Amino acid sequence: MAIVLGPNRYGKAENRLLRVYRDSPRHDIRDLNVSTSLWGDFADAHVRGDQAKVLPTDSQKNTVFAFAKEHGVGEIEDFALTLGRHFVADVDSVDGARIDVEEYGWERIEVDGRGHDHAFMRTGSGIRTTSVTVVEGGAWVVAGLKDLTVLKSTGSEYAGYLRDGYTTLPETRDRVLATSLEARWRYASPDVDWSESYAAVRTMLLSTFAATHSRALQQTLWEMGRHVLEAHPEIAEVRLTAPNRHHFAVDLTPFGLANPNEVFHAADRPYGLISASVLRDDAPAAGSAWDA
Amino acid sequence: MAIVLGPNRYGKAENRLLRVYRDSPRHDIRDLNVSTSLWGDFADAHVRGDQAKVLPTDSQKNTVFAFAKEHGVGEIEDFALTLGRHFVADVDSVDGARIDVEEYGWERIEVDGRGHDHAFMRTGSGIRTTSVTVVEGGAWVVAGLKDLTVLKSTGSEYAGYLRDGYTTLPETRDRVLATSLEARWRYASPDVDWSESYAAVRTMLLSTFAATHSRALQQTLWEMGRHVLEAHPEIAEVRLTAPNRHHFAVDLTPFGLANPNEVFHAADRPYGLISASVLRDDAPAAGSAWDA
Amino acid sequence: MAIVLGPNRYGKAENRLLRVYRDSPRHDIRDLNVSTSLWGDFADAHVRGDQAKVLPTDSQKNTVFAFAKEHGVGEIEDFALTLGRHFVADVDSVDGARIDVEEYGWERIEVDGRGHDHAFMRTGSGIRTTSVTVVEGGAWVVAGLKDLTVLKSTGSEYAGYLRDGYTTLPETRDRVLATSLEARWRYASPDVDWSESYAAVRTMLLSTFAATHSRALQQTLWEMGRHVLEAHPEIAEVRLTAPNRHHFAVDLTPFGLANPNEVFHAADRPYGLISASVLRDDAPAAGSAWDA
Amino acid sequence: MAIVLGPNRYGKAENRLLRVYRDSPRHDIRDLNVSTSLWGDFADAHVRGDQAKVLPTDSQKNTVFAFAKEHGVGEIEDFALTLGRHFVADVDSVDGARIDVEEYGWERIEVDGRGHDHAFMRTGSGIRTTSVTVVEGGAWVVAGLKDLTVLKSTGSEYAGYLRDGYTTLPETRDRVLATSLEARWRYASPDVDWSESYAAVRTMLLSTFAATHSRALQQTLWEMGRHVLEAHPEIAEVRLTAPNRHHFAVDLTPFGLANPNEVFHAADRPYGLISASVLRDDAPAAGSAWDA
Repeated sequence: MAIVLGPNRYGKAENRLLRVYRDSPRHDIRDLNVSTSLWGDFADAHVRGDQAKVLPTDSQKNTVFAFAKEHGVGEIEDFALTLGRHFVADVDSVDGARIDVEEYGWERIEVDGRGHDHAFMRTGSGIRTTSVTVVEGGAWVVAGLKDLTVLKSTGSEYAGYLRDGYTTLPETRDRVLATSLEARWRYASPDVDWSESYAAVRTMLLSTFAATHSRALQQTLWEMGRHVLEAHPEIAEVRLTAPNRHHFAVDLTPFGLANPNEVFHAADRPYGLISASVLRDDAPAAGSAWDA
Repeated sequence: MAIVLGPNRYGKAENRLLRVYRDSPRHDIRDLNVSTSLWGDFADAHVRGDQAKVLPTDSQKNTVFAFAKEHGVGEIEDFALTLGRHFVADVDSVDGARIDVEEYGWERIEVDGRGHDHAFMRTGSGIRTTSVTVVEGGAWVVAGLKDLTVLKSTGSEYAGYLRDGYTTLPETRDRVLATSLEARWRYASPDVDWSESYAAVRTMLLSTFAATHSRALQQTLWEMGRHVLEAHPEIAEVRLTAPNRHHFAVDLTPFGLANPNEVFHAADRPYGLISASVLRDDAPAAGSAWDA
Repeated sequence: MAIVLGPNRYGKAENRLLRVYRDSPRHDIRDLNVSTSLWGDFADAHVRGDQAKVLPTDSQKNTVFAFAKEHGVGEIEDFALTLGRHFVADVDSVDGARIDVEEYGWERIEVDGRGHDHAFMRTGSGIRTTSVTVVEGGAWVVAGLKDLTVLKSTGSEYAGYLRDGYTTLPETRDRVLATSLEARWRYASPDVDWSESYAAVRTMLLSTFAATHSRALQQTLWEMGRHVLEAHPEIAEVRLTAPNRHHFAVDLTPFGLANPNEVFHAADRPYGLISASVLRDDAPAAGSAWDA
Repeated sequence: MAIVLGPNRYGKAENRLLRVYRDSPRHDIRDLNVSTSLWGDFADAHVRGDQAKVLPTDSQKNTVFAFAKEHGVGEIEDFALTLGRHFVADVDSVDGARIDVEEYGWERIEVDGRGHDHAFMRTGSGIRTTSVTVVEGGAWVVAGLKDLTVLKSTGSEYAGYLRDGYTTLPETRDRVLATSLEARWRYASPDVDWSESYAAVRTMLLSTFAATHSRALQQTLWEMGRHVLEAHPEIAEVRLTAPNRHHFAVDLTPFGLANPNEVFHAADRPYGLISASVLRDDAPAAGSAWDA
């Protein structure tokens, strides 16, 4: 029996990058959180403390900021691909790279009925994400969003479920359904108009959430994934994770009041947590696209 | 010398209330975080452990939810006034009440080009707040907003400041100015169209932030307060608190790159923190309007 | 009517300072979060954008780190006094300074039965705090702690309270009492052995929480404050704030199980929130000691 | 091509359970955060909205609280095994269960030199965790800890690393090394004295961190894992994740001060992030032990 080094990774997490485009008086801004992670021939760094093949995480950070100038940010998927390919191609000891990017949205502040040239306000709902994996000879692009908080005040039921000796939940044909959606989708190839695809998927996730009469959050997730795949041949698989943010109708009868689903307490914990993958049965292999 | 009880308060914090209005198929929702705090004749509860005059915080919570049904939520300022007046008028031992409300914004999800009847998405920038103080014979209303994250990519400088032996900061005529604004304003009377006033103040804060060429965050705060007071005779005082969310231009010269204010690192801590009050010199007395 | 500038402050918040004492192989460390805030003759910075009298927050940050070397950290109350007195005495435009410090505790990691010379582990319960206010001709020292999480599994009741039309809470003679205590105490003079006083107060707060049979959280706070003042003539006033972290006994009767206060659900929100001051009736005036 | 349902799970996350043992006046408490997650024959719930085979997450929550009474909490690994085996054995549609538990430590408050019978204080460093996976015919137990914050004020260097065109980091033979450790270890079998093993592993992780002269965080992680495996034949694999919480020596030369590694700024973001697995080359297969 011997003790050996297993899978390992290292990188610089959460490089908070603001890129300003100021070629004209009408500026544009991009606000990113970029994390890098590398793997490869790094056993000596662990086992012998020898750093000769280790590119410091500080250098990775520098690369993120320098590339934002040299190459621009562009689409975050392309920015992540460019970073990942650089590390794999240009650093001998690196076999693979994972680049995660979050993008925070901003809109122009309106002044006198027109968006201002260089003043911006954070927008709200949802953070755009990407996770790109690059290995020698291949790359996978996963795009996504998170913290998209949505709620239906009706059009959701929960009934007909399995009952065991620990089941006390009453059935309901009308409840509030609320979640903070995380969705990620894997592209079949890296030849995509990323922004257009992102915007269309986001719209479809929202409209499917709204339009689906939900018999369970599971069903809503499936419908979301199915609609996205039907409309987007460039996407091979969708993964959805959704906490069920419970809203409990408050019992007002002690105060002589009826409560026909009008007054709710929004609970924090515990919460239901549902996750599901929806995919094509002929989807190209995922490789290490999803590896955390 | 004796040891005595000083100022004291108690209440129920962070009642998370969702109110659904479903009188027609086109629902409306209001999403609030309500905190109550009472003071009065409660020395015995402290000194002798005698609760005879203490309305439990659990009852205060029940009141919040029941009033949301009985009276509706309406404007959050009115909801807070109604709650505060109830506690002061109807509970003998209560001399004063402070009701704090946060309101989270939601917009309708768009489906086929139209806002959906009962599906909603959290909106982004800024949380609406109110803090209402009610005592026997009076009431103060403070409205506000917080977490309004704004940024200017130019139109901000910092120069001409005092230099001491610990000053190393270089002057700049062009920097990024970013903050997460908290603004609160005290009304001269409770006879106001709260929503209209709120919307107008928010718009003015944003447009002033955008339009002011800033020689310091202090100046921006002053201009915000001044513009609000000039346009809103119903407001007696504005208080503003703004962290200076530093964005540092990254030195790219080691990589042979110029950085003419295009690539920034968004820092977390430390941050500048600026607060200021702007008020009318003939403003009615603040009473306990601002008491935390 | 004119619009005027009211109270205003500015400073550098959350300077995260680690000070290592390495005069011998047996190192000591001090881990602080230091915030500065100044007020004085700063109207021009607001109203005219003129920074000539404004010491940059960047310089304040530099001062914090430089003083940690020049003067050492010592007691955090002394460190804050030194910083505050410097700003008031040495910067003409400054009339007053407020210095807030949080200290995070560390203990030595044990190796072979002995605390290691230079390896440390964060300790747990509670963060030590101080808030020092310096003006020309005076200073106030408030010491304290926060995030001290404590719980009693019995020895707490809640009964005999006022009942109104919104009261449904059943009385109990035995409940769990849990809180995350914040305590702050104002010294009558700055001539104190700060660490010794802090340690003794912390011990007394804990032992009083434990030993008091609690008829309400209010009573527990009073007893804490009273005991501290009786034992510590150097302290003029104690202020306590305590969220009532509700633990609800779970109803297990649907599953044929009794629950004699053995199984609880720890709830997040809402929570009771109790605050009280306990002071000497001949305490010296508080000045601006407590100003936020 | 068809669109199909891929891997999916559901459960109740973050059941906050306090269990009081009060068989004698000297109480014991256990404070847990329990999350359940189930998979199996649930396609109909997604694709057709049919809940007939779905045990509600509310029932899972009830089971957690009821089992805390029926079976007691005992070791958290056993509690998780009991819960997981119940769901797999007793609910036909369930093929597998993952139970995650966090345990928060408490110690007795000292009164008159003795730990109090029923008053407790949260302890500090580190949260104990377990993740148990149960499938028909097998079970895997992963134990661990997280949020164990440790720091070395010397005995750490970083030099000899790979330099590319984006490398500016100066080499150092003496730096501060700080991290918030997350460690998880997989047991070879479920026949272990869990508490004894946990305590010994925690001690070894700490002492190895302290005693290892670190040439990189990678090396420290390897040494931790290696030492644990050498001493604990019951453990098959250790996985470690450690953010490198950078402490930067502050340049005090502008103020005429040397800084021989005495004054540091503790930075927030970005941070290095290192993860590694250390395992036996003859370790039993991991099955789905690590699945998130």
